[in-house]
Amino acid sequence: MERHGEFQRIAEIARRLRMPSPDIALGIGDDAAVLAAVPDRQVLSVDAQVEGVHFARNLLTMNDIGYRAFVAAISDLAAMGARPRAALVALILPTELPESELYELIDGIADAQRNYGCPVVGGNLAAGSALSITTTVIGSASNSTLARSGCQVGDALYIAGELGSAALGLSLLQAGRSELGPHCVTRWRRPVARIDDALALLGLATGAIDVSDGLLQDTGHLAEASGVGFDIELERLPLHEELREAARALGIDSLTLAVSGGEDYGLLFTVPMSVSPPVGQRIGVATSSLGVRLIDDAGQQVTRTGDGGYDHFRRKT
Amino acid sequence: MERHGEFQRIAEIARRLRMPSPDIALGIGDDAAVLAAVPDRQVLSVDAQVEGVHFARNLLTMNDIGYRAFVAAISDLAAMGARPRAALVALILPTELPESELYELIDGIADAQRNYGCPVVGGNLAAGSALSITTTVIGSASNSTLARSGCQVGDALYIAGELGSAALGLSLLQAGRSELGPHCVTRWRRPVARIDDALALLGLATGAIDVSDGLLQDTGHLAEASGVGFDIELERLPLHEELREAARALGIDSLTLAVSGGEDYGLLFTVPMSVSPPVGQRIGVATSSLGVRLIDDAGQQVTRTGDGGYDHFRRKT
Repeated sequence: MERHGEFQRIAEIARRLRMPSPDIALGIGDDAAVLAAVPDRQVLSVDAQVEGVHFARNLLTMNDIGYRAFVAAISDLAAMGARPRAALVALILPTELPESELYELIDGIADAQRNYGCPVVGGNLAAGSALSITTTVIGSASNSTLARSGCQVGDALYIAGELGSAALGLSLLQAGRSELGPHCVTRWRRPVARIDDALALLGLATGAIDVSDGLLQDTGHLAEASGVGFDIELERLPLHEELREAARALGIDSLTLAVSGGEDYGLLFTVPMSVSPPVGQRIGVATSSLGVRLIDDAGQQVTRTGDGGYDHFRRKT
Repeated sequence: MERHGEFQRIAEIARRLRMPSPDIALGIGDDAAVLAAVPDRQVLSVDAQVEGVHFARNLLTMNDIGYRAFVAAISDLAAMGARPRAALVALILPTELPESELYELIDGIADAQRNYGCPVVGGNLAAGSALSITTTVIGSASNSTLARSGCQVGDALYIAGELGSAALGLSLLQAGRSELGPHCVTRWRRPVARIDDALALLGLATGAIDVSDGLLQDTGHLAEASGVGFDIELERLPLHEELREAARALGIDSLTLAVSGGEDYGLLFTVPMSVSPPVGQRIGVATSSLGVRLIDDAGQQVTRTGDGGYDHFRRKT
C-alpha cells in the first residue's frame, strides 16, 4: 500500500521533472538511466543537504530548498570546468511531509535543472526522520578540466562571483530584516553556480575550486592541494554594495562575512600573472610561503580575533 | 573544528577505499571525480539505505550495512546489463556514531567495490539524526542494454539467482535462529548483484529487472513497463534447500518468502521461447492477459489469502 503510494509519487515527480534532452537515451522509470555515448571524460560529484544542518524549513520555501540543493551539486561541476549533462536526486522524506510540499521541492529542483540544462534522469525516494536531498551530477569535460592542484607560485588568484552575500542573506532572514538586503537574501535562496565562467577558463586557469565553505577555507584547500600559499588583498574582495551597510545594521563584521561566509559558490581560481582571464576579479597571489594570509590596504597581515572576527587594525608583530 | 575533523575523516575514508583503476583520471579529493573517456553509453542509478527503514543496526554489522548498500545500487546496473565503472557514496552520520563504526562501514563498502570492480571515486559526509547511505553508480553499456519494457507476449520468464533467501535470512536473524539457515543469513547480509549474468544476456533478453521488492511486485513492474502479463509456475521457483525447512520451523510460509521476499537481487528476465539463455531458470511465460498470476502444479491459479500468505490448495472459481 505504502509502496503503491510511492509509485504514484514517482510518476508525479517524473511529470514535473520532464525535460527532453537528446543526451538522454532512457530517463526516469527503469532501473537506471542511460546517457548517450559521448567522446568526453565524465565528471561526477555528489552533494547532500540535510534539514537542520544545511537548511531550516522556516527560513526557506520548499521550492528554494530544492533549487539550492541542486545548485550546490552543479557548482562542483563548475569547479572542474565540466558541462552538466544529468543529475540524480535521492530524497529522504519525513512521513509527515505533505505531498504538496514534496511537489514544491520538486518544482524548485525542476527550475534549477532547466536553468543549468541538466535534466534529472533518476533518483530514489525513502522515508526517514529528517528531510535530506542528495544530488549526484554528471558532466562532460572535452579537453581539459580544472582542478585544485595546479596553482603555481606567482599565479594570480581570482574570484568570479560574490563573497559574503549568501551569508548576509541568511543573517538577514534569521533577523527578520530581509528588506535591508534583498539581493543578498535572493543569493542565499537562489545561489548561482558559475558554469559559464568555468568553461571560459578552460586552458587558462591553473587551479580552481568553488567557494562553498568560505573564501578563507576554500583558498586553504586550493593551497593544500597545490602545495602553495596565498596572500589575499582584502581591499580587492568583491563585496556587494548591500554588504557593508546591512552587516553594520545587524552588528556583523562585513569582512567576516566575506572571508568566512559560505554558499556563495563563487569560482576561485588562479592564472599565470601574465594572463588576463575573461571573468573574475583579482584578489591575491600564490606564494611559496604555505598557508593563507589576509593583507590589509597598508600591506599588513590581518589576524583573526578570539571571537572569530578579524582585527582590521592590529598589525602582526 | 568540526570541519577539520571532517577532512581528517575523509582522508582516512579515502585511504580505506583506495582502489587503483585505469578508468579513473581523478579520484577522491577534488571537487569532483573524472572518469576516462569511453565510447559507451553511460548508465546511472542511485539507491538510498536508511537506518530504521532498510536496515537495523542490531541485526547487521556495520561492515554488512556498507556492503549491502553498495550491492543494492550495483544491482540496478545488472538490471540494465551495464558494466560497473565507478560509485559515489553520500553518508549521513549520526553525531554519536563512533569513528570505529564509520570505518567498519567503509570497509564493507571497500569489500563490495573490489568484488564488483567498481571503485568509489567520490562522496559526501553530512551529520544527521539517522544513518543513511546513498550510493550512486555509473556503468558502461557498449551495444545494447536491458530494460523493463521489451517483454513480448509468448516470451519465457527466467530468474537468475535465488528467491526468498534474503527474506528468510532476515527472519532467522530476527528470531535469533541463524543456525537454521546459515546460507540464507549470508545472502541477506551479503547479497549478490548479478552483473556477469546480465552481461551474458545482452542481445538475448527482451526485458529485465532486478528483484529488489519481491518476485511478485517486480514481475508486476516488468509487466506494466512492457504492456504484457505473466503466468508464474510456482513449482519452477528456485528455492534454496534451507528455505522450506527453516521457514517451517519459524512458522513462515516458504512460498510467501519466495514470491514476496525482497533484497535477493536476482535477475528476472524474458527471452523469446526459442532462445535458451546461458543463465537462469525458467519460471513462467509472458501473456496477453495483463497482471501477474501464480500457477500451482495442477495448473490452477493460486490466490492470496487475507493474512498476506497464499492458499496452496484453494482453486480459483
